[in-house]
Amino acid sequence: MTDSVKFNRACVIGVGLIGSSLAHAMRTAALVDEIIGVDRDADVIARAQKLGVIDKGETDLVKGVKGADLIIVSTPVGAIGAVAAELASAADDGALIIDVGSVKGVALDAAKAMPERVHFVPCHPVAGTEQSGPEAGFASLFHDRWCILTPAPRDDDAYKAAVDKAAALWSGVGAKVEIMTAEHHDLALAVTSHLPHLIAFTIVGAADDVESVAAGEIVKYSAGGFRDFTRIAASDPVMWRDVFLNNKEAVLEVLGRFSEELAVMQRAIRWGDGQALEDAFTRVRGLRKAIVEAGQESAAPNFGRDDKPR
Amino acid sequence: MTDSVKFNRACVIGVGLIGSSLAHAMRTAALVDEIIGVDRDADVIARAQKLGVIDKGETDLVKGVKGADLIIVSTPVGAIGAVAAELASAADDGALIIDVGSVKGVALDAAKAMPERVHFVPCHPVAGTEQSGPEAGFASLFHDRWCILTPAPRDDDAYKAAVDKAAALWSGVGAKVEIMTAEHHDLALAVTSHLPHLIAFTIVGAADDVESVAAGEIVKYSAGGFRDFTRIAASDPVMWRDVFLNNKEAVLEVLGRFSEELAVMQRAIRWGDGQALEDAFTRVRGLRKAIVEAGQESAAPNFGRDDKPR
Repeated sequence: MTDSVKFNRACVIGVGLIGSSLAHAMRTAALVDEIIGVDRDADVIARAQKLGVIDKGETDLVKGVKGADLIIVSTPVGAIGAVAAELASAADDGALIIDVGSVKGVALDAAKAMPERVHFVPCHPVAGTEQSGPEAGFASLFHDRWCILTPAPRDDDAYKAAVDKAAALWSGVGAKVEIMTAEHHDLALAVTSHLPHLIAFTIVGAADDVESVAAGEIVKYSAGGFRDFTRIAASDPVMWRDVFLNNKEAVLEVLGRFSEELAVMQRAIRWGDGQALEDAFTRVRGLRKAIVEAGQESAAPNFGRDDKPR
Repeated sequence: MTDSVKFNRACVIGVGLIGSSLAHAMRTAALVDEIIGVDRDADVIARAQKLGVIDKGETDLVKGVKGADLIIVSTPVGAIGAVAAELASAADDGALIIDVGSVKGVALDAAKAMPERVHFVPCHPVAGTEQSGPEAGFASLFHDRWCILTPAPRDDDAYKAAVDKAAALWSGVGAKVEIMTAEHHDLALAVTSHLPHLIAFTIVGAADDVESVAAGEIVKYSAGGFRDFTRIAASDPVMWRDVFLNNKEAVLEVLGRFSEELAVMQRAIRWGDGQALEDAFTRVRGLRKAIVEAGQESAAPNFGRDDKPR
C-alpha cells in the first residue's frame, strides 16, 4: 500500500456534505494542488467557491473533469451510474475515480462497466452529519471513521495501484480503510446505517399521526428520547431515497429481522412479561460500551450535547 | 403559585440518576437544608454519601422519612405503589410527596389512595441521560426541561398548596412546569419517550441477529447511524421494564401507529416508489428544527459530539 499520495487536480462532482468535507480534508492534508467542483446547481458552485471549498467550479461535467487525475463522485447514489457513463469517455486516461455512496452494489456495477483506461474504485466513508450542502463540510469528518473499499474484479497492475492510491487518500484524511465485497458492505450497512435511518424517518413521521398529541407537545417533551431520532431523520431526503431504492434486498431483509424482534417485544408488553423485557434490555447495553471503546462514539452522557451551559 | 420554596429536610427514596440530580439541583438552588437518602441497596447509600449527594443515608424507609417535609420517590415506576403504601403511615403530617416516574397513571392511583394528611403530587421531569446510579446525577439536568404534574383530584386547600409547592420546587431547579391529566401524559410520553426507547432497544437487539454481520462490524460502522440508537438503549433495564409494564395500553397504541407507518415505508421500498420515500423523508425534516428552536436540542451537527478534537 502506498504510504502517501498526491494529486494534481481533483474534481469533486456533487459539492455537498461529503464532497466538500473531502475537499477540505484533502486540502488540509496537502494531498491535492487544485480542486475543481462540478455541480448541476450553479448556486452550489458559487457558494462552494465563496467558502473556499473549491478553486474553480463548473456545471458541465465533461469540462470539469478535464485534466483531473482524481475524480470524486459525491452525488446521491442514484446518479452514480449516469455520472460514471459520462466519465467513461470524459475522464482523462489513468484517472482515479472514487465514489462515496452508501450503497456499493450500484457503484461496483458502474466500476465494472468502465473502460480499462480509467480506474473506478468504489468507496464508502462511514461518516456524516445530518446537515447537507457545501456549508456543512468540515475537514475532520473522516478522522477515525472507517472507509470501506469494494474494488472491481480487475487483475491489472494499474487498477491495483489505483486501489492502493484510493486507500492512501482515505488514510491521508484520517480514515481507517477496510476492503470487502460490495454485497457484504450492503448488508452490513443495511444493519448499521440504512435500517436506523428508515426507523428514524418512520418514528418521526408516526409521531405526527397521533391526533390527540399536539406537535407542540412532541417538541416540548422530545428530551424523553424522541429528539435523538430527529437527528438522522433530518438527513437529506434525496440521498436516502436513493439508498433505499438501490439497496432494496438487504434493507428488506434486515427490516424483516427488526419487525420480528419488535413483535416479540410487543407480545412481552401485551402479556406483561417483565422478565423477557428486562432480559432483552440488559442484553443490548454492552454494545454502546464497545462502540465508545472503539472510538466511534462520545462517552459523555447525552452525547455531550448538554456539556455547555444551557 | 408560590414563587419560591424551601424545605427543611428532603428524603430521596431511590438515589439513582434522577434522585441524585434533584438532590444536587436542590442543594445548588438552596431549596433544602438537609437531604436524607433512602435506598434498599446499602452500597448505593454509601456511594451517594461519599459523593456528597446526601447528608445521611438509611436503608429503612420508615426511619428515613421521619421528619421530612419533602419526600421524593425516585424509584422505578413499578415500586411507586408499594413505597406510597408505606408512606401512607410513615410520612409526617403535611409532608409533600412527589415521584419522578415516566408513567403517571400508576402514580396518580397511588396519590389518590393517600390519606388526606399527606400530599402526593405526581411529577415527571422529562429529562435524563443514558447513565444510572448516584454517580450519574448532576445539578443542571432539569434546566430548560419540562416537568409535568398530574395532581390528584383533591379540592382541599392543603393539597392545592402542595401542588403549588411542587411546581415551585421544579421551577427552582430550572424546569418549566406543565399540568395535565395522567392519561394525556401517558399517551404523549408514549410518543416522545416510551416508543423511542422500545424501538432503540429493539433495533440494537435485532442487529445482533443478522448472523453474517459480525458484532465487530456493527461497532466499526456504527457511525452510519446505529450508534445514535445505542444511547437510549443503554438506559436502565429495570426502569424501562417498569415503564412498559405500567403504560401498556398507550405504548401498544402508538406502537400500532408506528408499525402501520413502517409497513407503508416497506411497501414503498419493495415497489421502488421513490417519490413516496422522498415525500415522507422531506415531511419529517422540520420537526428537528422546531425542537432546536425550542431549546430542547443542540443545533450542532452530530449533537456536537464531534466538536472536540478526536
